[in-house]
Amino acid sequence: MSLPVPVLKPDATIGIIGGGQLGRMLALAAARLGFRCHVFAPSPDSCAFDVVHRVTIADYTDTAALDRFATDVDVITYEFENIPAETAMFLSARKPVLPDPVVLATTQDRLVEKNFIQKLGIPTAPFVEVSSPDALKSALEAVGRPAVLKTRRFGYDGKGQITIRNGTYPSAAWREIGGQPAILEGFVKFDREISVVAARGRDGSVACFDVTENQHRDHILKTSRAPAAVSPTVAARAREIAESIATAFDYVGVLAVEMFVVSKGGGHEVLVNEIAPRVHNSGHWTIDGCSVSQFEQHIRAVAGWPLAQPIRHSSVEMTNLIGSEVDDYAAWLAVPGVALHLYGKGQTRPGRKMGHVTRVLSGPK
Amino acid sequence: MSLPVPVLKPDATIGIIGGGQLGRMLALAAARLGFRCHVFAPSPDSCAFDVVHRVTIADYTDTAALDRFATDVDVITYEFENIPAETAMFLSARKPVLPDPVVLATTQDRLVEKNFIQKLGIPTAPFVEVSSPDALKSALEAVGRPAVLKTRRFGYDGKGQITIRNGTYPSAAWREIGGQPAILEGFVKFDREISVVAARGRDGSVACFDVTENQHRDHILKTSRAPAAVSPTVAARAREIAESIATAFDYVGVLAVEMFVVSKGGGHEVLVNEIAPRVHNSGHWTIDGCSVSQFEQHIRAVAGWPLAQPIRHSSVEMTNLIGSEVDDYAAWLAVPGVALHLYGKGQTRPGRKMGHVTRVLSGPK
Repeated sequence: MSLPVPVLKPDATIGIIGGGQLGRMLALAAARLGFRCHVFAPSPDSCAFDVVHRVTIADYTDTAALDRFATDVDVITYEFENIPAETAMFLSARKPVLPDPVVLATTQDRLVEKNFIQKLGIPTAPFVEVSSPDALKSALEAVGRPAVLKTRRFGYDGKGQITIRNGTYPSAAWREIGGQPAILEGFVKFDREISVVAARGRDGSVACFDVTENQHRDHILKTSRAPAAVSPTVAARAREIAESIATAFDYVGVLAVEMFVVSKGGGHEVLVNEIAPRVHNSGHWTIDGCSVSQFEQHIRAVAGWPLAQPIRHSSVEMTNLIGSEVDDYAAWLAVPGVALHLYGKGQTRPGRKMGHVTRVLSGPK
Repeated sequence: MSLPVPVLKPDATIGIIGGGQLGRMLALAAARLGFRCHVFAPSPDSCAFDVVHRVTIADYTDTAALDRFATDVDVITYEFENIPAETAMFLSARKPVLPDPVVLATTQDRLVEKNFIQKLGIPTAPFVEVSSPDALKSALEAVGRPAVLKTRRFGYDGKGQITIRNGTYPSAAWREIGGQPAILEGFVKFDREISVVAARGRDGSVACFDVTENQHRDHILKTSRAPAAVSPTVAARAREIAESIATAFDYVGVLAVEMFVVSKGGGHEVLVNEIAPRVHNSGHWTIDGCSVSQFEQHIRAVAGWPLAQPIRHSSVEMTNLIGSEVDDYAAWLAVPGVALHLYGKGQTRPGRKMGHVTRVLSGPK
């Protein structure tokens, strides 16, 4: 890390880059611990602004604003992984940025990320680099159909990707993703999608939350259940993968690893799909189902405080409220054992994450 | 109520009078539900200011500031019961104030409060009104020694009260409390101190949290445990008392009733000690030990939303961090299953509530 990183006192100020629901929930967790937060985000109606001590509304390229922001805070973290590299570098020279933005160089590029994962001996879906229409054709021969063409950079919630089926013209798919550097991924016939949200402290200790089982709809996470209905062996392997990734990055904070469980021989294999170097939607259940939330774990790590031992006290199911689904909030309020979370986003748009609910499915475990 | 009370939409703004830790935790709970908060408090370093959308720093008698505050919010609530009656009346004429401030006329005066409780057929400690040194002498004859002389108004955390033992001169005690209108209370030999935190919705439904057992030190709450080690009969009676008080007030929001459990005959009797028309320190465990917190229940009630069914998922013990005890926060961070809450108060002072910890003692129930 570029700068010495202080252990924060409870009256310290934590800078958060990004003003969405993840920043908002990070700030709420920081407040419980006595910290102040200062959120930096370009949009004046960022929902994280409503719960913090100070805000900066400015573009990520506004160096004067970045400089003032860095001056006001003791340490900086971020709620999303697509921070421009220049912004992260500019801030790193002024205040400690955690997790270290070098991680972003890996996770912002699907090709680099997949190579990184494979170098750790962890399997992924088959993939081939694609940088031209011709390369796409030969990649399809190698990988087969169906396959998914994904831009290397700036993809999330299904943006920047297209499925190539029998009958899809490679040239059309290439145009569809804007003719950008990409990878072609083979389809994985998975039994389950799971994720592990893991925290790593400055002392190198890692604390994983229980393995979570996820269901997506239109490429957006719809539900997460904890614990996942996987064998102890699969759960242990999933945690081991998350821990080895966090350790390889010398990571500080919370990260999430999305994985596929696939049948192989008589057993199961765990493949890594994606790494998110931040708190993650599939960890929202920890607010209501665990002795410590993913947001508090991240703040503890960033502050140089010890991680908590995460003790899940109930079986839970988290459901995202996407777009106009948020209008059903009153119905959710009436369901016993349901915790409603609304993000205070003014405008409802299709595909926009407006809130979530966590339902306690049973007593403990 | 003076004004029609709207059912709030999630983007509404809730006004909170008072900027201490209770206002702060109310604001954090409101944020989870998507509400914005505007805190009105006289002190510029009010700790609730750090987690809200808007703040007003002004005296409770500043009618121009109160007027602007009322204009900005959709509904008003309060974190403490000693709001000047004129302030509450001024605001009530402009926006709905919940719980209805008529409650304050009862709870701000120990004599009126005790008479109110007894009229409901609920026993209290023996007490006599005392308005002069002579009255104190005859009160002592009626009540006996030891006894506690308490000012009728503005008492909390042991302020405005003195114990009269054998050897205490009545005239000295009278001077000690400033010669104000008072009551003399007989000593109660209680087995346990308990409290019930109850929420009442606008529809008249009441939801009680589990009976909590409290220990005080120097008149300040030190620990609370849930559930209290009382029989089902005593627990049911305690809930019944809280419910009947909430209903008698036509209350909307959360209130706490502090009670004594005393041996009587072969069984137990429950006496009411005090009513707090607000969220209460003995309900802080609900944040970490229950499916809904007292703070969220209060916000739901004030918003006109349905109450949640409170489902305690663990046995818990809450310990206040008072004064310099807060310096031990790092030690608490290391204890498995402990949730640390710091209030972001800049200055540590003796007797000041700086934070609390909730320790999960077991799995469920």
